[in-house]
Amino acid sequence: MFPKNAWYVACTPDEIDGGKPLGRTVCNEKIVFYRGEGGRVAAVEDFCPHRGAPLSLGRVCNGQLVCGYHGLAMGCEGKTISMPGQRVQGFPTIRAYPAVERHGFVWVWPGDAEQADPAAIHHLEWADRPDWAYGGGLYHVQADYRLMVDNLMDLTHETYVHAGSIGQKEIDEAPVITKADGEHVVTSRFMDNVLAPPFWRANLRGAGLPDDQPVDRWQVCRFVPPSHVMIEVGVALAGHGGLQADAKYKASSIVVDFITPETETSMWYFWGMARNFNVADAALTAEIRDGQARVFAEDTQMLEAQQRNLSAHPKRRLLMLNIDAGGVQARRIIDRLAARERPTHVVA
Amino acid sequence: MFPKNAWYVACTPDEIDGGKPLGRTVCNEKIVFYRGEGGRVAAVEDFCPHRGAPLSLGRVCNGQLVCGYHGLAMGCEGKTISMPGQRVQGFPTIRAYPAVERHGFVWVWPGDAEQADPAAIHHLEWADRPDWAYGGGLYHVQADYRLMVDNLMDLTHETYVHAGSIGQKEIDEAPVITKADGEHVVTSRFMDNVLAPPFWRANLRGAGLPDDQPVDRWQVCRFVPPSHVMIEVGVALAGHGGLQADAKYKASSIVVDFITPETETSMWYFWGMARNFNVADAALTAEIRDGQARVFAEDTQMLEAQQRNLSAHPKRRLLMLNIDAGGVQARRIIDRLAARERPTHVVA
Amino acid sequence: MFPKNAWYVACTPDEIDGGKPLGRTVCNEKIVFYRGEGGRVAAVEDFCPHRGAPLSLGRVCNGQLVCGYHGLAMGCEGKTISMPGQRVQGFPTIRAYPAVERHGFVWVWPGDAEQADPAAIHHLEWADRPDWAYGGGLYHVQADYRLMVDNLMDLTHETYVHAGSIGQKEIDEAPVITKADGEHVVTSRFMDNVLAPPFWRANLRGAGLPDDQPVDRWQVCRFVPPSHVMIEVGVALAGHGGLQADAKYKASSIVVDFITPETETSMWYFWGMARNFNVADAALTAEIRDGQARVFAEDTQMLEAQQRNLSAHPKRRLLMLNIDAGGVQARRIIDRLAARERPTHVVA
Repeated sequence: MFPKNAWYVACTPDEIDGGKPLGRTVCNEKIVFYRGEGGRVAAVEDFCPHRGAPLSLGRVCNGQLVCGYHGLAMGCEGKTISMPGQRVQGFPTIRAYPAVERHGFVWVWPGDAEQADPAAIHHLEWADRPDWAYGGGLYHVQADYRLMVDNLMDLTHETYVHAGSIGQKEIDEAPVITKADGEHVVTSRFMDNVLAPPFWRANLRGAGLPDDQPVDRWQVCRFVPPSHVMIEVGVALAGHGGLQADAKYKASSIVVDFITPETETSMWYFWGMARNFNVADAALTAEIRDGQARVFAEDTQMLEAQQRNLSAHPKRRLLMLNIDAGGVQARRIIDRLAARERPTHVVA
Repeated sequence: MFPKNAWYVACTPDEIDGGKPLGRTVCNEKIVFYRGEGGRVAAVEDFCPHRGAPLSLGRVCNGQLVCGYHGLAMGCEGKTISMPGQRVQGFPTIRAYPAVERHGFVWVWPGDAEQADPAAIHHLEWADRPDWAYGGGLYHVQADYRLMVDNLMDLTHETYVHAGSIGQKEIDEAPVITKADGEHVVTSRFMDNVLAPPFWRANLRGAGLPDDQPVDRWQVCRFVPPSHVMIEVGVALAGHGGLQADAKYKASSIVVDFITPETETSMWYFWGMARNFNVADAALTAEIRDGQARVFAEDTQMLEAQQRNLSAHPKRRLLMLNIDAGGVQARRIIDRLAARERPTHVVA
Repeated sequence: MFPKNAWYVACTPDEIDGGKPLGRTVCNEKIVFYRGEGGRVAAVEDFCPHRGAPLSLGRVCNGQLVCGYHGLAMGCEGKTISMPGQRVQGFPTIRAYPAVERHGFVWVWPGDAEQADPAAIHHLEWADRPDWAYGGGLYHVQADYRLMVDNLMDLTHETYVHAGSIGQKEIDEAPVITKADGEHVVTSRFMDNVLAPPFWRANLRGAGLPDDQPVDRWQVCRFVPPSHVMIEVGVALAGHGGLQADAKYKASSIVVDFITPETETSMWYFWGMARNFNVADAALTAEIRDGQARVFAEDTQMLEAQQRNLSAHPKRRLLMLNIDAGGVQARRIIDRLAARERPTHVVA
């Protein structure tokens, strides 16, 4: 279950560079992404109208997507442009999907193209600023994307799933505050005067701060529809104001999570971290990315096992505790968006 | 098809040592096994009542099974004991399964717990005696567990499946005698004055006997419900009484087979050998186990291929020859036990 | 969808040499192939009438197929010949399939045995002649066998799928001529005065001809029911008559394709090349085979992806262009053969 009239992250620009198209299923739609005329990103059905070969096995020539089977050249709008020795006017059109490259990602709208407005793409304030650095990766996870939303909107799990990196007992003990305004959900947790766990000690050193002193730690998880979770995380030397502390006392960043449904029980999980300290240090970027890769691999393993259990017991009801409030509120927004898309049957 | 009101071997104790729980499906029940308070074995559903994560991904702390996702602590009876920051009184109970450690194995009762009586656990007279040694292993086999019962209750197949180890032409030629008393089934075969095959020549040497003289060989297969087959096997120097010969003339042992259904078409096959000669010789134990591992891998390959054939031809009737009498009688007992568990519909 | 009353290539003789039977599914029939009495090929159901074990796990002794489980000896006609300690007269007969070794292949008739006439086996004029050499291989492809027929009856795809070996732009540009006479379909393409692509330059050298001069190239694809495609291919030094040129000016051969359905969406693809130049040169045979193996692996990858797309969109109609005429005509013949096999319901 997922809204289709929404902008999802489909891939990163490097995945379609070099004239090689990319086949990827988003919200059950088999789509091929590529750079069309002038390098503009394009997305059409991954199905050649001639004999059904995947267009993603072809290549891009002069902005046209050329089928790798018999050379049909497809245009960005889903209309066949040409085919050797054939008149193509009568060829059926395949579906084209609105696609936009922005903020370092390729976005796709898998639903009704008429309703797609690029202005509605999630604005990432840090993405195009020189005082911020970003690194990240992609995992293909065999689980309902909403399990990842749940996971990220309740960081209690860090104590158990990530005991060796970002987990610490104080997370469990700090109360969680969840606020929803119908458009977004924010779940916050503040831990004052604690010792930083390994991942954050490394970041303190990366920010040129001592790593052996008490810190104030924060986690502010923000759900943005359809399925993004941006988490302000950080530590400041204790007593300087925590999240509000002056930059010189803190190491802070934004954990970036775009969670794109592939099918009902699988997802493309784009994860990363944006930071505004020590931004020119590429080695630090790589170190953070490697650390996140390990952390999110732990989540992936847990969620895939959870999905297998849920699929085996489809009727079993789960608990919704206070720590789950963030996920519960986020799912309500998702449900509302999806409900809007269902045809309403009007009985006269 | 399997009786669920029965004691099955679930695992060996070493599989749950070291605080690591074990997830294993028995008779279609997804169960987690672990050592609870005081090291006592426990078995509950492998499904956290909070969000459905498998409890087998967690760890055991102070006799409690702690979920690896959000720290819920589960008790041996399926009641949640605690969870950080939560009141757990209202949490739903998950299913607990009677489980007992005995005779070097962990036994589970996957059916109605009310009817579980540990006194009914298969008594293994050799298991706790110092004058016996045991070695064995576990295979996960993709076939109906009853195919393994058939296999072990008719050793004619040794001539063909195990030609290089325990098979010999005389097995085919010796008549087979099957007796059933409603509770057990015994199939016997005696081969007098034959040459021992390679596996038994090695055992003769292991027992300090010559390996190049004629022997009397025996195989007495005993089916014990729900699905165990204990096989008295051995060779004695010819003319000293065979199975009844004095210990100094023979190498004899018990082939031990616990065949635990996982699903309708897969099983956990616990195999091994108990012997009462040269019991302190660990190298001999290892040698026998390696030999058995090779032999049972041959069976496994055959049974998985047989299962694929039967699944492709579900309506085809098989033959039941005199050599199949042991398996046929054993299946009758299984059928009777399973029939007792089905609800009877009384029409007034 | 496939006709079953037809001779299909089942395997090559070397696959059943050495007393080892071969289990292979043809047209949904699970069959075991072996050499029976006097080395004559035989084919029966791969299902032992005793307990359903695959007979292909057994071995051949004195022309009998002996089951590897309990020693049942099966005859070429599907009648059990003997079993240790058993009277076998009443054993049910399993199905036997007409099978013939001819032209370097083993042929099977998976349908009604009454209608099987070995005289109808596809005659391969080159197969038993000393002035021809043959080399080939086998691919197991996860796609409807008709997709391979389509592929081979329209070589336009060479330009795109095989750009590095046999493809060249001129294929696209040359008109294609398709003729069908109700029994066979022939699709031809002639390209005069072109440069030979890499595969053919190598063959020119193999034939002792210069590889840097313009050539006349031809492709004459002949569909022979039920699913064979024989393709006369070659190049001649330009201006000497092309396909009709004297042997000393050309390198020509026959691409041999036997496309045997395994299931509705998988096939056994026997491919190879027969040539009548430099026939004693085994290194050349190997070189050609290696080249073909690479080419047909490219087709295999494309067809499997195409099949996945078609399976995901079962109702979508494909285009039938002039270049597809060969495949379309071939499918009509296949449809007609299959229709004959369906029972006709006569309404009085």
